[in-house]
Amino acid sequence: MTIFSKIIAGEIPSYKIAESDKFIAFLDIMPLRRGHTLVVPKVEVDNLFDVPDEYLSELLVFAKPVAKAIEKSFDCNRCGVSVVGIEVPHAHVHLIPLNDANDINFLQPKLKLSPEEMKEVQELIISNL
Amino acid sequence: MTIFSKIIAGEIPSYKIAESDKFIAFLDIMPLRRGHTLVVPKVEVDNLFDVPDEYLSELLVFAKPVAKAIEKSFDCNRCGVSVVGIEVPHAHVHLIPLNDANDINFLQPKLKLSPEEMKEVQELIISNL
Repeated sequence: MTIFSKIIAGEIPSYKIAESDKFIAFLDIMPLRRGHTLVVPKVEVDNLFDVPDEYLSELLVFAKPVAKAIEKSFDCNRCGVSVVGIEVPHAHVHLIPLNDANDINFLQPKLKLSPEEMKEVQELIISNL
Repeated sequence: MTIFSKIIAGEIPSYKIAESDKFIAFLDIMPLRRGHTLVVPKVEVDNLFDVPDEYLSELLVFAKPVAKAIEKSFDCNRCGVSVVGIEVPHAHVHLIPLNDANDINFLQPKLKLSPEEMKEVQELIISNL
């Protein structure tokens, strides 16, 4: 069972942003930028392109209001998207507010936010949903 | 009219990989890796999340066989996905074969492939579609 399946099952807490029957969106606990959010299908499949079409066809439509809320919440040009997927064998889409390509560069050091700061980010995004 | 709309209209040539009524996929002429492909909706909208839902719901399903062909064509862990979108004001999704996060880092120098090498990459991906 992946760490994301444990989050979906409620066995591990998360800073949840949105949820549907097929997806959950929650804050990345090692964010590149404030507002860095993961969208995860509720099916444990490693590679995004092995996720069944019934999920693939709804993923970006589910992500859209979350991305729009991120864009409203932070000073950014737009919300970028990235799927790398090497660390956790459960498909996940990164939504990251960006002003330039470095904002979405996974080689840079991650931010260290306190639980209070994570909660603030969560509440800000939800308030703009 | 964006450079991508000119490619869609056939006014500018491209190394085309696949096409449907709503999308076109062609090689990025400034690739990060061999096989770096763009998927572009046939509607001129800057921000991916402003693209109408009828396109968003088909985008990943259209991209899937292209991504699978890229994975078969090149030595990689999987096909990554990135949407940055600052250079060209027409939504586009990067599909990039990757083994680690650096393969999808847009700050690194781009490859310089000859027209013959681009044609080889195109034919290899198409042969695996």
